[in-house]
Amino acid sequence: MSVVHRILTGDRPTGPLHLGHYAGSLRSRVALQGAHHQTLLIADLQALTDNAGRPAHVAANVLEVALDYLAVGIDPDRTTIALQSQLPALADLATLYMNLVTVARLERNPTVKAEIEQRGFARDIPAGFLCYPVSQAADITAFRATLVPVGDDQVPMIEQTNEIVRRVNRLANADVLPECEALLSSTPRLPGVDGRKASKSAGNAITLGATPEEITAAVHSMYTDPGHVRASDPGRVEGNVVFAYLDAFDPDTTAVTDLKARYRHGGLGDMVLKRRLIDVLEIHIAPTRARRAQFAGNLDYVRAVVERGTAIARAISDETANDVRRRAFSLDSIAAA
Amino acid sequence: MSVVHRILTGDRPTGPLHLGHYAGSLRSRVALQGAHHQTLLIADLQALTDNAGRPAHVAANVLEVALDYLAVGIDPDRTTIALQSQLPALADLATLYMNLVTVARLERNPTVKAEIEQRGFARDIPAGFLCYPVSQAADITAFRATLVPVGDDQVPMIEQTNEIVRRVNRLANADVLPECEALLSSTPRLPGVDGRKASKSAGNAITLGATPEEITAAVHSMYTDPGHVRASDPGRVEGNVVFAYLDAFDPDTTAVTDLKARYRHGGLGDMVLKRRLIDVLEIHIAPTRARRAQFAGNLDYVRAVVERGTAIARAISDETANDVRRRAFSLDSIAAA
Repeated sequence: MSVVHRILTGDRPTGPLHLGHYAGSLRSRVALQGAHHQTLLIADLQALTDNAGRPAHVAANVLEVALDYLAVGIDPDRTTIALQSQLPALADLATLYMNLVTVARLERNPTVKAEIEQRGFARDIPAGFLCYPVSQAADITAFRATLVPVGDDQVPMIEQTNEIVRRVNRLANADVLPECEALLSSTPRLPGVDGRKASKSAGNAITLGATPEEITAAVHSMYTDPGHVRASDPGRVEGNVVFAYLDAFDPDTTAVTDLKARYRHGGLGDMVLKRRLIDVLEIHIAPTRARRAQFAGNLDYVRAVVERGTAIARAISDETANDVRRRAFSLDSIAAA
Repeated sequence: MSVVHRILTGDRPTGPLHLGHYAGSLRSRVALQGAHHQTLLIADLQALTDNAGRPAHVAANVLEVALDYLAVGIDPDRTTIALQSQLPALADLATLYMNLVTVARLERNPTVKAEIEQRGFARDIPAGFLCYPVSQAADITAFRATLVPVGDDQVPMIEQTNEIVRRVNRLANADVLPECEALLSSTPRLPGVDGRKASKSAGNAITLGATPEEITAAVHSMYTDPGHVRASDPGRVEGNVVFAYLDAFDPDTTAVTDLKARYRHGGLGDMVLKRRLIDVLEIHIAPTRARRAQFAGNLDYVRAVVERGTAIARAISDETANDVRRRAFSLDSIAAA
């Protein structure tokens, strides 16, 4: 990519980030910063769409996510870190966009459908949850983002955003907003230690600042191949969580390829593999853990980073909202009425 | 009512207001001002929920509605006139409340159901339209309104608002917001000249500043009793639009009662009645028409009224939104995180 993009991405502050986030997104954000205008949104409002009953939990995790960003190497001089709830333009744009999207269209959204099922909402979906593609479109367009890093399950969100962009531009009869494209991660999703989807709430993930003891315990509990009883038995690599983590974090890919062959053939025990993974993860995590502890000892600095980023994001998003209000919805100031 | 209430009400700027608005709400607003804290919201954002395709039409009617208010005697020193789209706290509160209301609950709302049918939306309801009870709850609670003048078809909106109020107060574990009650109009709904529902768009209404010629033409076209062919025939009073307007505007109620008896008995022609109504309406409308023309010649003053009211409303609604954000949703400033 030689084009300079505006990138919008972020995380819901519902718990500490984990290695799955690192492999799937944080690593590439560190790589993208500097070459592109990147904004990371700590999405506390979006977190409330399915955590309305525990707002204190969401609030408590705002600075945790900021700490995670700084710890993995996000540079606040090159990436804007902003707090969603402090950007009034986002609710403003979402309210306007709600008039451009039908309920039927939202109900057809495959991502929303899947997440409704996953969360067991059935008929009791909060309206905010059904409408969250509209809020995401507000977030993305507020920064006139042209590139949005997403998992492949989130591609329908980008399509929904671009439908709204086209409606807005048609209403304004001008290119007020740019369309955006998905930046799909090439990394397969990192599973939880039990082989299921890693999640903050399921407790099956390794946090970015895990202690050596936590790393060891997590790796020892990792799901491998239940059919691989003795070291001499042939073992399965696919679905084996230890190999998934080695693929994601072991810098010596040749050695990992070799280990896979030996494991498949028989003669390589789980403990050997797990000891290697423990070393790999400790080497990977140690500097993050140290930086995280350092920033955690200076929360005033972390707050200042988020405040500064939020002020920058506020100026940008306010400008976009005013533009959309005026040009697509004829919502000018009273003086112009 | 010896209690001083905070009253919130308003109108969608989709066309000039008409005599139905006067009989149903404007007259009582003029009576209520002074004794209560009254805010009138020119609901341009709500108008967009089913006018997204014609924002310029909505924008063009903002000052028309303000003119109508001033013309009928709303006193901007005693009533706050504010423009909805210039109050960011409303979208902010609506976004938060969206997490407290399920889609199923919105779909069950009888007012929404009826209006969806009336507008012929079927499955293509804009999300903003389905969610407009949530926006109304945001409007009402932003002003901590305790009394909301509504038609009986709007009572479910008050119930929805109070459900949200109770959820917010439960989340905050404190009485952050007051519940509100409906102020039902004792006046029956004034029909359009053709006997159907009066509406700005159907063109069957008499505007507040109608000219003598418009009044005469409208009264002449009024639906009476198709069975009442000759003056000597007995006629029906019920469903007779001329009597509906005499009931609403003729100050001599004894004379109207007498006319009804004569009409029922037979011997009273439609033209006699209609001439009386033309006189009654001209006497009623003339001062409004004159004031409206006067204010229309000084739009800078009208703009200033709306700007001043909007500034007052902004301070109040921002304060409420900050209170709700902080106490019910733990959305404090970053510095407090």
